[in-house]
Amino acid sequence: MMPTGSQQESETGRLEAFSDGVFAVIITIMALELKVPEEGTFASLRERLPALLIYILSFTFIGIWWNNHHHLLRAARRITAGVMWANLHLLFWLSLIPVLTEWIGEHYEDHAPAATYGFVGVGAAVAFTILVRAIIRADGSSSLVAEAIGRDSKGTASLAIYAAATALAFVSPWISYALFVAVAVIWFVPDRRFAG
Amino acid sequence: MMPTGSQQESETGRLEAFSDGVFAVIITIMALELKVPEEGTFASLRERLPALLIYILSFTFIGIWWNNHHHLLRAARRITAGVMWANLHLLFWLSLIPVLTEWIGEHYEDHAPAATYGFVGVGAAVAFTILVRAIIRADGSSSLVAEAIGRDSKGTASLAIYAAATALAFVSPWISYALFVAVAVIWFVPDRRFAG
Amino acid sequence: MMPTGSQQESETGRLEAFSDGVFAVIITIMALELKVPEEGTFASLRERLPALLIYILSFTFIGIWWNNHHHLLRAARRITAGVMWANLHLLFWLSLIPVLTEWIGEHYEDHAPAATYGFVGVGAAVAFTILVRAIIRADGSSSLVAEAIGRDSKGTASLAIYAAATALAFVSPWISYALFVAVAVIWFVPDRRFAG
Amino acid sequence: MMPTGSQQESETGRLEAFSDGVFAVIITIMALELKVPEEGTFASLRERLPALLIYILSFTFIGIWWNNHHHLLRAARRITAGVMWANLHLLFWLSLIPVLTEWIGEHYEDHAPAATYGFVGVGAAVAFTILVRAIIRADGSSSLVAEAIGRDSKGTASLAIYAAATALAFVSPWISYALFVAVAVIWFVPDRRFAG
Repeated sequence: MMPTGSQQESETGRLEAFSDGVFAVIITIMALELKVPEEGTFASLRERLPALLIYILSFTFIGIWWNNHHHLLRAARRITAGVMWANLHLLFWLSLIPVLTEWIGEHYEDHAPAATYGFVGVGAAVAFTILVRAIIRADGSSSLVAEAIGRDSKGTASLAIYAAATALAFVSPWISYALFVAVAVIWFVPDRRFAG
Repeated sequence: MMPTGSQQESETGRLEAFSDGVFAVIITIMALELKVPEEGTFASLRERLPALLIYILSFTFIGIWWNNHHHLLRAARRITAGVMWANLHLLFWLSLIPVLTEWIGEHYEDHAPAATYGFVGVGAAVAFTILVRAIIRADGSSSLVAEAIGRDSKGTASLAIYAAATALAFVSPWISYALFVAVAVIWFVPDRRFAG
Repeated sequence: MMPTGSQQESETGRLEAFSDGVFAVIITIMALELKVPEEGTFASLRERLPALLIYILSFTFIGIWWNNHHHLLRAARRITAGVMWANLHLLFWLSLIPVLTEWIGEHYEDHAPAATYGFVGVGAAVAFTILVRAIIRADGSSSLVAEAIGRDSKGTASLAIYAAATALAFVSPWISYALFVAVAVIWFVPDRRFAG
Repeated sequence: MMPTGSQQESETGRLEAFSDGVFAVIITIMALELKVPEEGTFASLRERLPALLIYILSFTFIGIWWNNHHHLLRAARRITAGVMWANLHLLFWLSLIPVLTEWIGEHYEDHAPAATYGFVGVGAAVAFTILVRAIIRADGSSSLVAEAIGRDSKGTASLAIYAAATALAFVSPWISYALFVAVAVIWFVPDRRFAG
């Protein structure tokens, strides 16, 4: 059955709506995990500074993912079962970010939290690639997404940097944090691939 | 009063939007209940592994329910009071999954959490069946849903497996977990009934 | 400036979308406040039974409010500043229900939680009435809402019962709980006023 | 590629939907941070009164920001990368309000929480101004927003009052609270700039 314009709209529309809801809850719930300073003093607030900095980083990452997801879904024309599962798979990795953000905030000088955070970044980047492929398969070879994806240097670069950050966390977590910031900077200029 | 196309759109649309919001919060809030590892070490992370595995299972279940709900509502043409209450009833059962996921994560070797989880699965499966009937009643006998529902072998199978998992949890919770995975596998290939 | 059909759609649409989001979070977050049973036993689960029962009641109330809100907004044609503030005022009262639900769950034999819950019910019922008036004022005297509102016996009845439940909590909280159930039963058959 | 009407609709639509989700979660999650009174008594409830009052203030602020955001986005015609990042920047500041609300609720007689709350108010007000500029740049000089923004006396006033509240918190937090209420009163009559 060939979907008409409005059916297609509603098809991609509800996947976007559900995903947006998940993105909105993830990004907001991280703030809930910021612990209230124990005393009503600036000294007490200062103790929360590392947690705030990693919160800002994670907030930026979720923003980047939402942005890329938004552009990808706008270019998609058909939602198949494969696309839905690939989308859930991406959301799964992203859903781990709040608890990892809290973990790093509490143990920012340790190797394990930084390495795990990098690993989840790799997972999300791989999941995004799988989602792109699922959408291309659903839309056919003349897909808008297929046309655009040839130039996905940013995706490849950030996957490589996340992988490096995971490995180098065992040398020092501070190298990982520098690499995470690098990924954020790369994506800050948003993806023009689908913007047309 | 016969609803026009756009009125009907908005009628099913807002029920979908509200339900999507609930699904999105449920699936994300489970991640919030993942406890942060106490130390910044991989040993400490490993202690959280059972909680992570049951989280993945519950994440998959909510994804399956969202998927089925999405296809069901797309086939629905009229929202009556009965449909709304049947929908809320389904969401009620699903809303219990996060706290049960946390309970199993903390006591995965005990009978009670596994049995209760299975029981809530039965509740959700029954609630889904009631929702299907309510939509058929609202749409009339020529309903798209009515046409499709003759072949609902997956729904029946998963209801039976959930019931078995509830009972067999008293033998060993590991049997229940195996059966929960079986339900997930069955639904992984999504419901083609409404996909057209 | 006379809004066209689609502008009006978007005008009421975004108020509905925001409100639906709030309703969805409120109803789901209550489940998060259900405490995980301490042990992995049915005895430990049974200790949570009062909390579960009041959760079911609150879930039903939020469902009723969402349902009434949904029908009211569908009949609305114009969103003014007054309507927006009246809507936020209603959401404010409803936002207190999760924390009160948790409070009753922990102290269900005391007077104060039951009385406070009733008082918040009165607040929400008054806020709903104010919202109805704001919408009628915005739409003008030929408003669909104005036509329908003459028969609002349910609203008046539940306001009276909430007020009685607040006062009688000082005799026994169990009288209040019985009255809360009575309100739920009254609304269970949903509001036909706007259903057309 | 010139966007057609419906593409543009979906362009601003999804940004609104995501933002609405974040607003809805922020406003509801604050209620979750209201601590349950320890005992089932009115005396115990009374101890929570300062936390409730600051909750009402923050609820009002989020309502005001949502309202302004809603009117601003309705006047916007094009979403660029700059607009998306400016929007996320605003949401970032607002996402800090729940944890600060909890902090003030626990330490309302101290300087630091009141000053930090004022500082975040300044941050949000600046972020809103940046968002307005980004939208004007995206829409071009004939922008609806550009036309309206000449008269933004409320924005300037509230920015100045937030700044004063931040500084004067070091004299007494009660001056800050009085100034926060003043900001709320100013905005209570909503922004007619874009209401047309």
